[in-house]
Amino acid sequence: MAVAGLPKVLAFDVFGTVVDWRTSVARESTTFLQRIGRADIDAVRFTDKWRYRYLDVMKRYRETGRDFTVLDVLHREMLDETLRHEGVDPADLAPALLQDWTFAWRRLAPWPDSVAGLTRLKTRFPIVTLSNGNIALMLALARHAGLPWDAILGAEVTQAYKPDPEAYLGTARILGVAPGELCLVAAHHSDLAAARACGLRTAYIARPDEYGGRRTADEEAAQEWDWSADSLVALADELGCPPAA
Amino acid sequence: MAVAGLPKVLAFDVFGTVVDWRTSVARESTTFLQRIGRADIDAVRFTDKWRYRYLDVMKRYRETGRDFTVLDVLHREMLDETLRHEGVDPADLAPALLQDWTFAWRRLAPWPDSVAGLTRLKTRFPIVTLSNGNIALMLALARHAGLPWDAILGAEVTQAYKPDPEAYLGTARILGVAPGELCLVAAHHSDLAAARACGLRTAYIARPDEYGGRRTADEEAAQEWDWSADSLVALADELGCPPAA
Repeated sequence: MAVAGLPKVLAFDVFGTVVDWRTSVARESTTFLQRIGRADIDAVRFTDKWRYRYLDVMKRYRETGRDFTVLDVLHREMLDETLRHEGVDPADLAPALLQDWTFAWRRLAPWPDSVAGLTRLKTRFPIVTLSNGNIALMLALARHAGLPWDAILGAEVTQAYKPDPEAYLGTARILGVAPGELCLVAAHHSDLAAARACGLRTAYIARPDEYGGRRTADEEAAQEWDWSADSLVALADELGCPPAA
Repeated sequence: MAVAGLPKVLAFDVFGTVVDWRTSVARESTTFLQRIGRADIDAVRFTDKWRYRYLDVMKRYRETGRDFTVLDVLHREMLDETLRHEGVDPADLAPALLQDWTFAWRRLAPWPDSVAGLTRLKTRFPIVTLSNGNIALMLALARHAGLPWDAILGAEVTQAYKPDPEAYLGTARILGVAPGELCLVAAHHSDLAAARACGLRTAYIARPDEYGGRRTADEEAAQEWDWSADSLVALADELGCPPAA
């Protein structure tokens, strides 16, 4: 890849691409389900249902015409709905418990290569978040997981949720770069396709364990991306970032 | 100071508090003034005039009713005005040169204690910017000066310039903390006074060299602040952050 073809800034999807939301939220949900006396509910399936609600809400957010509302609040609403679907009335539970459960999304573990890969990529490129997570969530997550972001951008800063084009274009505008100078790094084909439609460069990171080894939900959106790697360390290799000293 | 009294997040003024804008911009302006054939103009006085325009514009920004415009753009406008005041028509100069000169504000040197102090403070507190500098400017400056921010917040994210209360209150809201859980760290009494009026905690950092040893312009706004130190390392001591390993 010619150096002239390199992007100026790397913007990262976070849930699934940089951190393993499923293992972390399922582990915490196991504990919370025990605390509310519902250890009979499978915590992994519960986590997946919570996540599917998220994917569905994000896809249609703009259409609903709802004012921009931060993900911490949406995550809580989705938790309530997921609980109701299991026959649990969230009104019967302590608000502090529900808040703490919601904040499981602030305490996710990074994939094993994430911190080392980001640290190397940062030596050559500014690295920013382009996640649907709100700033407070992303900040807490970065401190929890040791993610060395240069800046936390994305949905709350642009007031638009991916895949709304404004989430991608607004991020480029705020950074003062052309869309083609910004590269989205993501494990999801649909996210990369939306970024490419806005003129961004694209880097795919394979995360086969995101859904416990099942195929990604958006395999049909796969294209040949500008870069493709099976870890952030491998992406650092592809982009010519020097190994750690 | 009782531990119960500690803030949850530290938000930093940057120009003057964390970085030495005057020495850096004057050094660059010396070169630019030579390049435009005006080495007769004193670069330090030129820099101060540029900065005074900034202080004046910020103080009255809300009153003007102008839409929020990022500081990179305002810095460029103020440069043009400062040049005109010296009898230089910016229309006679190359746009690339004027842009590069404006971006001197992205290449400021930190005070000698800043990186060590921030690094220690970060072990215990999230550290964010609460500057009037826009995100792209703050990001470039952080990479240039090695400032390890957890997040870049402030004017562009809240769409309000200090001392507009929304700059302080919006930052607390985005962080998900009460105003009293957020502490502004700043070298300027007027900034701290505006933050205190919004309910924020306040930490004063003495920077006697900001204006080359002259008294600060806003000495009359001095109060007894919650914390007071003569460097960010000293603030780390006051706030009980462990020394570097």
